Amino acid sequence: MTMQENALSIFALGGVNEIGKNMYVIQYANDLFIIDCGSKFPNEDLLGIDLIIPDITYLQENEDKIRALIVTHGHEDHIGGIPYFLKELNVPIYATRFTLGLIELKLKEHGLLRDSKLIQIDEDSHFDFGQTGVSFFRTSHSIPDCLGIVFHTPEGVVVHTGDFKFDLTPVNNQYTDIHKMADIGKQGVLVLLSESTNAERPGSSPSEQLVGGHIEEAFRKAERKVIISTFASNVNRLQQVVDAAQKTNRKLALLGRTMVNVVSVAMERGYLQVPDGMLIEAQQVNEMAPEKVAILCTGSQGEPMAALSRLSSSNYRDVDILPQDTVIIAAGPIPGNERSVSRIVDNLYQLGANVIYGSGSVTGMHVSGHAYQEELKLMLTLMKPKYFIPIHGEFRMLHHHRLLAESVGVEQGNTFIINNGDVIDINNQVARQTRKIPSGNVYVDGVGVGDVGNIVLRDRKQLSEDGMLVIVVTLSKMERKIISGPDTISRGFVYARDSEELLREVNRLVKTTVNDLQEANRYQWNVMKQSIKKSVGQYVYSQTKKKPMILPIIIEV
Amino acid sequence: MTMQENALSIFALGGVNEIGKNMYVIQYANDLFIIDCGSKFPNEDLLGIDLIIPDITYLQENEDKIRALIVTHGHEDHIGGIPYFLKELNVPIYATRFTLGLIELKLKEHGLLRDSKLIQIDEDSHFDFGQTGVSFFRTSHSIPDCLGIVFHTPEGVVVHTGDFKFDLTPVNNQYTDIHKMADIGKQGVLVLLSESTNAERPGSSPSEQLVGGHIEEAFRKAERKVIISTFASNVNRLQQVVDAAQKTNRKLALLGRTMVNVVSVAMERGYLQVPDGMLIEAQQVNEMAPEKVAILCTGSQGEPMAALSRLSSSNYRDVDILPQDTVIIAAGPIPGNERSVSRIVDNLYQLGANVIYGSGSVTGMHVSGHAYQEELKLMLTLMKPKYFIPIHGEFRMLHHHRLLAESVGVEQGNTFIINNGDVIDINNQVARQTRKIPSGNVYVDGVGVGDVGNIVLRDRKQLSEDGMLVIVVTLSKMERKIISGPDTISRGFVYARDSEELLREVNRLVKTTVNDLQEANRYQWNVMKQSIKKSVGQYVYSQTKKKPMILPIIIEV
Repeated sequence: MTMQENALSIFALGGVNEIGKNMYVIQYANDLFIIDCGSKFPNEDLLGIDLIIPDITYLQENEDKIRALIVTHGHEDHIGGIPYFLKELNVPIYATRFTLGLIELKLKEHGLLRDSKLIQIDEDSHFDFGQTGVSFFRTSHSIPDCLGIVFHTPEGVVVHTGDFKFDLTPVNNQYTDIHKMADIGKQGVLVLLSESTNAERPGSSPSEQLVGGHIEEAFRKAERKVIISTFASNVNRLQQVVDAAQKTNRKLALLGRTMVNVVSVAMERGYLQVPDGMLIEAQQVNEMAPEKVAILCTGSQGEPMAALSRLSSSNYRDVDILPQDTVIIAAGPIPGNERSVSRIVDNLYQLGANVIYGSGSVTGMHVSGHAYQEELKLMLTLMKPKYFIPIHGEFRMLHHHRLLAESVGVEQGNTFIINNGDVIDINNQVARQTRKIPSGNVYVDGVGVGDVGNIVLRDRKQLSEDGMLVIVVTLSKMERKIISGPDTISRGFVYARDSEELLREVNRLVKTTVNDLQEANRYQWNVMKQSIKKSVGQYVYSQTKKKPMILPIIIEV
Repeated sequence: MTMQENALSIFALGGVNEIGKNMYVIQYANDLFIIDCGSKFPNEDLLGIDLIIPDITYLQENEDKIRALIVTHGHEDHIGGIPYFLKELNVPIYATRFTLGLIELKLKEHGLLRDSKLIQIDEDSHFDFGQTGVSFFRTSHSIPDCLGIVFHTPEGVVVHTGDFKFDLTPVNNQYTDIHKMADIGKQGVLVLLSESTNAERPGSSPSEQLVGGHIEEAFRKAERKVIISTFASNVNRLQQVVDAAQKTNRKLALLGRTMVNVVSVAMERGYLQVPDGMLIEAQQVNEMAPEKVAILCTGSQGEPMAALSRLSSSNYRDVDILPQDTVIIAAGPIPGNERSVSRIVDNLYQLGANVIYGSGSVTGMHVSGHAYQEELKLMLTLMKPKYFIPIHGEFRMLHHHRLLAESVGVEQGNTFIINNGDVIDINNQVARQTRKIPSGNVYVDGVGVGDVGNIVLRDRKQLSEDGMLVIVVTLSKMERKIISGPDTISRGFVYARDSEELLREVNRLVKTTVNDLQEANRYQWNVMKQSIKKSVGQYVYSQTKKKPMILPIIIEV
């Protein structure tokens, strides 16, 4: 796989036609820049898979050209793949101070911190690699310290927005640098890559500040203790929770490993101000007057092992949810998580709690961190790109983002909706999409990376739906006669007590099948196994309408 | 299990603390009435299960007292369990004309139609069984011919609403009979059972008529063919689709077995008026001018085998979706189905279609069939019950419905939030909840009913996540020595090519384990199997962090 001489090339290894595992590449001549290295959670049909990360075959084949992994911000879908990536390719990582804090947590867990090259940047950083310069601009999002990236190549300027919204009244003092963005646009942008998460939503996203007011109000109204769950990485929202606790004279306990870790990084690095003496341990909660306590915890998406889920099932050591406690779920459910969140809400009501839940537009307890349509149009207008590549979204989002781009003047035909692996090559200011490089999903299962694939998943699916029958027959080597069995063992199929007759019949059938083959002098194991599978499979299906996996084992002694 | 003499008892066998498998029982003295017999679709954690139906142990034990199964309307969560029920208990079924049509379809499929006792009723019907009289009142919902039920017992009147909304401008002429409802309330209601689906939603649900206007508008705007997907049972919406097709001069093709079946029942029985010559076959669609065709199909919830899903993946014989076709999903996604619907929308955009999708409040293409808070309060106000049992909903919905009841005057303490199986006994106008009868989920898997339970599901879960290792060892009966194996077969675990070394080590470990036990003279199979499971389990977990099912098979010859 070689690149054309001096060509500018742009592609995604993850993040388009999906939500998650973001990874984009900008290559000019022999200098290759990676943007983000995310992970994705599997759908329920990927049985047993823990995590999905991008296929980095192309990067491994072009290791000598990689100059940097630049990380736009610290969300899992942008940093979750880094430990697995670093085990394969030890590339220097460039990120802001807070983002680096979260990456370091991850690398520590994987025992990789010591050998990693981590380089701290900010919005004023500038680097040159070969003929390409890299600079940055500050954006707002639902996590501190986010950057957009500008690549100054001899072919032209490429801008990658990272995840963003235009929050003009942010909770911290990290203002979106609209003037810098305007300057970049004025000087001319050849290609814009902009995120598409909310391209289906009309209007503009509300400011994070509005959430703070609602949190404070709920804290004031609560007559007993308050439990509030939100994304640990949304430090600005955590700050608003801290502020509400302070104003209502409550101590604050942190529940959930991620919450404790992120708060500690954020406090150490100055992104979260917590008054001295406010934080208490979980064990202290039950000892204090309930109107003097608040709890900040993980689990707003209904994750079964997280703090909120365990609290809701009275399954958290040291802390109980009691009647008239107030529980706030300060996050909308991400599509796919609705049922898990609802189950938790049901349990909380059963415990007698007052529960504030539902979409942010109803409760006021959540705003999105991603730009809505009017904000996406503002970005497009500021940057005035010649070419546009909508990224970070499923197809319908990319599609709507294209329509938005065209509505503010990007020429028809100049928007490229790509798949992961599709390469956009640009020569003499002309962009074309003509070739593909390897890309795909790599499954992480336990400690294995890439050791589970389609055959294994297909087996798991069959096993999960109808279970299996293991059939053991022992033959004598000399006479090729059955000397033990057939014995049939069923797992995940039907209750043994209901299937005794069925299993007896299966054994009879196997005996007949084996004897018939022997009379015909067909002793090959493969033939025998196939015949057993076929006859037993047909019989079992006719009786039960189920198709368990049938695993014949033939032993010769 | 015996009832108190002459007591009035009320309980649910399905439908509370869940959405689905509705089944309620009203018993006075020795006369027992069943209301509805629904089914429920399994969550994804019920691996391989096709359907869930109520446990009817109590009814089987009290068969002699059952007077009737009365069906409020024809949705699956109210009639889906009937075929399984009738196989156990041949009880006469009372339902309206349209509901009976749908029940008959079901019974035909199961070969049960001939032996069933089906009795057609309408809102004016009245029956006496022993000391209890049964009458009805008409309601509106998202399917024609819905009834509420009134039980006139010596102890007092019990009202069951069925599913309802107050649609004062219905598409058909089946008006909600508010005057009759007011009369029932005026005469005094002891207990009200009312559905709670939308008890979390403020305001009132919009009228179905509004959908018709939006459908017609979309049909007018469409320059090529229109594909519209909705719930087949929502005949009033089907009527509006037919009307839009007529007004815009389009022929109409029906795709999907359920759609074809329901339309045919609705036309035969006079609930749907389709102009002569409007309906065409699927094969004719591609032959006609696209602006002269519309398609009405199933699959609005993203069901993978339904017509819309197959159309969206270009996988439907005879019909293609082409660029500029208009696809309307005239249904909001039911919680849990969001991702499946989104995948279909993505595919439709990839085909170049214009897609109208999303929640009904955005598109105008869907309204709920269930009463919102103001309508629930109207029902409670009309009925003025002494006691209230919110039904048909998960806990948080029942909880909110209780608050609504108290807000319109039901006394605190007079609302019973029950679980399936909790019995409310009423004596001398005093209701108490003190006892439980058997209740639960019965799983339908293939043709098996109740033959899959927790152990089988636990096995399926383990198999689905980490697969299995089958380990076969053959011992000689005489010397108790290994004469063949150990052989280890893995399925659904990891790729064989990646695990050769691991499996060799497992075999070595099994050999050692067996030999050690033999030296210690411990030949019991159970001991051997447990030891193999333990040592192999620990080793495999240490190497892979996976926990496959380990199935040792020991053969003696």
